[in-house]
Amino acid sequence: MADRATVAAAVEDRIDLKRMSRRLEQLFELGPPPHATRPGLSRDEQAAVDLAASWMVESGLEVATDGFGNLFGRLRGRRPELAEVWTGSHLDTVPAGGRFDGALGVLAGIEAVAAMAHAGAHVRTTAVVSFRDEEGWRFGGGTFGSRGICGRVRADELDGRDADGVTLRAALHELGLRASAPTNPGPLPGAFIELHIEQGPVLARSGHAVGCVTSIVGMVGGELVIEGRAGHAGTTPMEHRADALVAAAHVIAALTRAAGQIAGAVATVGAVEATPGASNVIPSRAVLTLDLRAPDDAGLDALVGALEETMAQTAAGTGCRCALRGLWRQRSIATSPEIRAAILDSARRCQESIRPISSGALHDAAVLAEAGVPTGMIFARSNADGASHTPAEDTDPEAILAATRVLARTLLALARTGT
Amino acid sequence: MADRATVAAAVEDRIDLKRMSRRLEQLFELGPPPHATRPGLSRDEQAAVDLAASWMVESGLEVATDGFGNLFGRLRGRRPELAEVWTGSHLDTVPAGGRFDGALGVLAGIEAVAAMAHAGAHVRTTAVVSFRDEEGWRFGGGTFGSRGICGRVRADELDGRDADGVTLRAALHELGLRASAPTNPGPLPGAFIELHIEQGPVLARSGHAVGCVTSIVGMVGGELVIEGRAGHAGTTPMEHRADALVAAAHVIAALTRAAGQIAGAVATVGAVEATPGASNVIPSRAVLTLDLRAPDDAGLDALVGALEETMAQTAAGTGCRCALRGLWRQRSIATSPEIRAAILDSARRCQESIRPISSGALHDAAVLAEAGVPTGMIFARSNADGASHTPAEDTDPEAILAATRVLARTLLALARTGT
Repeated sequence: MADRATVAAAVEDRIDLKRMSRRLEQLFELGPPPHATRPGLSRDEQAAVDLAASWMVESGLEVATDGFGNLFGRLRGRRPELAEVWTGSHLDTVPAGGRFDGALGVLAGIEAVAAMAHAGAHVRTTAVVSFRDEEGWRFGGGTFGSRGICGRVRADELDGRDADGVTLRAALHELGLRASAPTNPGPLPGAFIELHIEQGPVLARSGHAVGCVTSIVGMVGGELVIEGRAGHAGTTPMEHRADALVAAAHVIAALTRAAGQIAGAVATVGAVEATPGASNVIPSRAVLTLDLRAPDDAGLDALVGALEETMAQTAAGTGCRCALRGLWRQRSIATSPEIRAAILDSARRCQESIRPISSGALHDAAVLAEAGVPTGMIFARSNADGASHTPAEDTDPEAILAATRVLARTLLALARTGT
Repeated sequence: MADRATVAAAVEDRIDLKRMSRRLEQLFELGPPPHATRPGLSRDEQAAVDLAASWMVESGLEVATDGFGNLFGRLRGRRPELAEVWTGSHLDTVPAGGRFDGALGVLAGIEAVAAMAHAGAHVRTTAVVSFRDEEGWRFGGGTFGSRGICGRVRADELDGRDADGVTLRAALHELGLRASAPTNPGPLPGAFIELHIEQGPVLARSGHAVGCVTSIVGMVGGELVIEGRAGHAGTTPMEHRADALVAAAHVIAALTRAAGQIAGAVATVGAVEATPGASNVIPSRAVLTLDLRAPDDAGLDALVGALEETMAQTAAGTGCRCALRGLWRQRSIATSPEIRAAILDSARRCQESIRPISSGALHDAAVLAEAGVPTGMIFARSNADGASHTPAEDTDPEAILAATRVLARTLLALARTGT
């Protein structure tokens, strides 16, 4: 058996940047324009999953799918009884998203695990996984596939509906997936590493191609439902109104102010719907999406506190009722010190510039980490001032290659050990 | 020939409240639930127009339609060369609207003109008209049919689209209507009287069944388009954002404050759309409907000034661009003193309680008045605190009968004169 350095170098050498770029472009061009609109559990996401499955087969990996639609490409180890090593990310996108968010992690995983297959030095079974519906904007959830695996999908989530009235259950059914909400976690790996683009400007500004994620932001998501009173836009005096959209405007402004006063916190209302929605009728109802994040629990608590205070003030000031719906919380979480050490050591060995960084975005990695899986994340540098969730997303080939090399080295290091 | 009082009493006697109530209910039940959702130039509005046409025929009126889809039921006079006398209103509704807004004016017109036909005392041709798409929320215009007759539909309006992307031109075409924008006004009547529910609480509070409208509110309508910058909701710091929906919230709050400071003014944003509309993407674009009204030009100017100031402040404060789209203005307008006198005299003669009142809502009557047609309006009392544009709209039978009697007397008085 060749020495570690020789094997690792051989693995790195098999990483094919051109193939990765071609596959990224193939994924980007799936579905109707604007490109990269692949809602979770849609046919367009499924087409991306099917394409990834074909690449896994091409790479000699064993393909499997679970009841949530998560796709696995497994490289069987010499000791399959040991906990597996996983890498991966997701293939769904936001509407009119970019080329790299999610997709890069899956493709880098396929590339790295396929390279390991060729080297044959792994002891543990190693898998690349594509989780379903990470973005969550279609059904209002998010990290659906990873939460499913970790036993955190609630039964009532399956009754949630998208904007067209399709339930999550029906969407699963249409894709031929098991439509019950499993309550038990599946078998979880002994380690998980997600490669993802940074989606921020930190690495580009500090001149690093790769980041080693230290912690992942905490997040509260859900909807705010405001009930006011409809009325004629011309004949209802201002002082007699209970305008749900005016109340919504107060909440949006207050949340924006509050987030600006909490270090590292962000608050976003990405969508709003006013009902009945006619220009000459006072809105009786407004529904807002909520996306509140902070780097630690204290900050997130403060942001949620500001939301609750604003709701009370708005109700008192506008005569509207405010209620939260489908609220969920993902605690901020630190990555595993052992996995971080393995990532930093791999970067050092393959001479890639790396720096510690915290993640302002939520990722499937946070779900696995919270379930107790030793978890790490590798960030690839984002250009274009960190633009993300738009077609302007840009990560350069140098950063892609560097991050994939670090991933491959780290997976190899974790998969070689039998302890 | 019988004396005036006897003829008028005979006309009033033929007004059949039960028939009117039955027809109001038939219109309310058209189309899919929620009842009374009849968008302008839709099949459901067309079904209401067809029903009204059948009632006109039943009443012995000559039915005609113009290129805008306006429906006329004519009672030919002994001197058809004289300017006609018109009454009427509209049959479209807001989404989930009520039983009375628009529909009552058309039905009262049919009832009154049919009663005149029986009496046979008219000299001038008298017509009841149902104007198309008065509410205007579907294509963002409003008073489409009456503006069409008055030569005020712009050619570019026909390219406007509804929320499903259907152009106004295509909607006309589908209904078999002439799809070009005529620029010349059609033949206008010598007098127009619109009967309409008050849509406010004034008559109910003062104990009057009927109101004689002195002036109709001025109004500015259109859309505000805000362009910001999309970005990831988790990784874009608050201070680096150009969030179009946050800008929209500023505008909504500022317009609400401004309207509250101008006597009698109201401002409403009835609908808003944020794009791309995902919970975890900062909105790059927001489109708001604008509905600004004031009882006089000075107030309306002040409100529009506040809008422009807010747009400038918002652009400076949020980094978003704000632009107005499809803005239109309907000047506030006084009704004709001669028609007002005829209405008040008729009310006195049939012993109905009437009071002068101004209209906070825009009506087809304002369009005809601005085109130079001597115009009046009769309001029927609204109950339920003036609730309107909702199924809670309520006008009691006593007020319906009183207003229709005053209308019939006034039409008769105007149609008897050959001068």
